[in-house]
Amino acid sequence: MVADVPHLREKTAKVGTVARAAAIFRVEEIFVYPDEANKDQSAEINFVARVLRYLSLAPHIRRMAIKIEPSLRYVGILPPLHTPNHPPAGKSSRPSKMEIRDGWVMKTEGNRSIVDAGLAGPVIVYEPLRKNSIVTIRIVSVDDEIRASIVDPSKISIYWGYRVAAPNLSLGRLLKSQSNGMIVSSSRYGRPIRESLPSMKDHISTSSRVSIFFGSPKSGLHEIARREGVDLDKVSHFVVNSVPGQGVQTVRTEEAVTATLAVLNANL
Amino acid sequence: MVADVPHLREKTAKVGTVARAAAIFRVEEIFVYPDEANKDQSAEINFVARVLRYLSLAPHIRRMAIKIEPSLRYVGILPPLHTPNHPPAGKSSRPSKMEIRDGWVMKTEGNRSIVDAGLAGPVIVYEPLRKNSIVTIRIVSVDDEIRASIVDPSKISIYWGYRVAAPNLSLGRLLKSQSNGMIVSSSRYGRPIRESLPSMKDHISTSSRVSIFFGSPKSGLHEIARREGVDLDKVSHFVVNSVPGQGVQTVRTEEAVTATLAVLNANL
Repeated sequence: MVADVPHLREKTAKVGTVARAAAIFRVEEIFVYPDEANKDQSAEINFVARVLRYLSLAPHIRRMAIKIEPSLRYVGILPPLHTPNHPPAGKSSRPSKMEIRDGWVMKTEGNRSIVDAGLAGPVIVYEPLRKNSIVTIRIVSVDDEIRASIVDPSKISIYWGYRVAAPNLSLGRLLKSQSNGMIVSSSRYGRPIRESLPSMKDHISTSSRVSIFFGSPKSGLHEIARREGVDLDKVSHFVVNSVPGQGVQTVRTEEAVTATLAVLNANL
Repeated sequence: MVADVPHLREKTAKVGTVARAAAIFRVEEIFVYPDEANKDQSAEINFVARVLRYLSLAPHIRRMAIKIEPSLRYVGILPPLHTPNHPPAGKSSRPSKMEIRDGWVMKTEGNRSIVDAGLAGPVIVYEPLRKNSIVTIRIVSVDDEIRASIVDPSKISIYWGYRVAAPNLSLGRLLKSQSNGMIVSSSRYGRPIRESLPSMKDHISTSSRVSIFFGSPKSGLHEIARREGVDLDKVSHFVVNSVPGQGVQTVRTEEAVTATLAVLNANL
C-alpha cells in the first residue's frame, strides 16, 4: 500500500488516510495482505499494520501496547481518529458511572486486576485478566475505588473503533477466509458501482458481514489474484468500480478506499 | 480550509487532497471563499488557491505561470494529478498531429504567436495571443515547424482539468452567484444523502451545472451562512449529509469533499 511513495513521512500519511476512512465509515476490522505472495513483504506489512493499530488505540494505551520505534516517527503528524474508544482529553480524571473505556491490564492479584484506563487512579476489575492485554471496561462504581466490569466491544451499541489483522495470508486465501460474508472487490475494471447497488442491498440483508477488498498501488486486484491462480470474478460476489469516469490516470489506494466506503455507506 | 493544521507541510497536503478529489471526480471549477466574512483571510485564501492552481497546471507551464515562493515549498511532495492536460513525461519531444496540449504564450509577432507547450521546439499559432497567458492548443502540423490552433478547453470531449477562482465573495454572495445551477450544500446536519438522491437526479436533468458547497474546519455551512444573515436551507436546493452515521467526532473538510464527490459521482 505504501510502495508508491518514497518517504516515511508520506507513507505514514497514506496509512493515516486509510485509518481515518476506516473510522469515519465504521469499519470493524482491517486486514493487511501482501500484493506479491512470492516476495517477503513482512517489513512493509508490519509497518502498515503498526501505524493502523497505533492510531486505533486510545492514546493512554499506546505507550504501553506499542513499542515506539523509528518507523513510527511521523505518527504524531497524523490527524487523530477520535473514535468513541478515544476518551476526550481533559475529562480523564473524573470518570462517570457506566462510562465505557479501553484499558491496559497492569497486573492481576488473585481474582482482582488493576487496569490503567487513562484515569487519575487505577481501575479495579474483580476478574483475573491477562497481564499486558487491552480490555474494554464499563465503570460500575466511582466511590472509594474506581471499579469496572469487562464488556465485549463487539456488543457495544455504538461504533467503537477498528481492529487490525495482518494474518500473512495471500489475497486468494484471505478472500477464501471471508467467504462466509459478502465479498466486494474494488477494481477499475469492475462494473460501475451504481449498477450493482440494488443486488448488493438484497445480498447484504442475508450476510452477516461485508468484506471489501482493494488492490495495491502496483497492481489491481485482478492482477494480484491472477498471479496466484485465482479468478477474482469467481470468488467475489461483486467486482465494482466505485470511481466511474475517473478524471485522472490512476486512483490511489487510499482514495479508492475512501470513495468506495463513502459510496457503500451512503447507499446501503 | 487549512486553519486546523499548524504546519505548512500539512496545510499543503490538505489542499493536495482536495485537488486530487476534484480531478478524480472531474470538477470543472473550484471556488475558495472566506469562512469569516468580517476578517481578512486573504493570505490563507491565496495560499489555498495558489496550491490548487499550481497542481492543476501542466508541469511545463508552472514555472512560468506561478512565482515560486516560500509558501509553495512543499508542493513537490504532493501526488501529481495526471489529468489529461498534463502530458505524460517522456513523450514531450514528439508531438502527434491532433494532440491537445496546454501552452504558455511566449510572444506574439504580428498575427503569429510562439507558444511553449512543453515540446522540444516552440509551437507556432497563427493568431495574435495575449503574451504570458495560458492557451489550449491542438497540433495541426508537425512537418518543418510545429503548428497548432487554439481550442476551447470547455469544448473538449474529455475532462481536461479544473480551474480555480478566489473571487473574494462571502459564502452568501457565492451561493447567490451559483443560483442558476443546482446548489448542494454538504452539512453534518443535512438529510442523509441517500434520501435526496432521487430528487437530485430529477433536478440535475434540468440544471446546466451543479455547485457543491463545503464548510470549513472551524464552522459548518449553516454557521457560516447564519453569521452572514443567510438561511442555508433556503438558498440551497439540497442540504445533505454525505457521511451518515460517521464513526468519528469530526469529518475533516478534505474528507467530506472526497466522500461527497464520490457519492454524487457514483449515483448521479
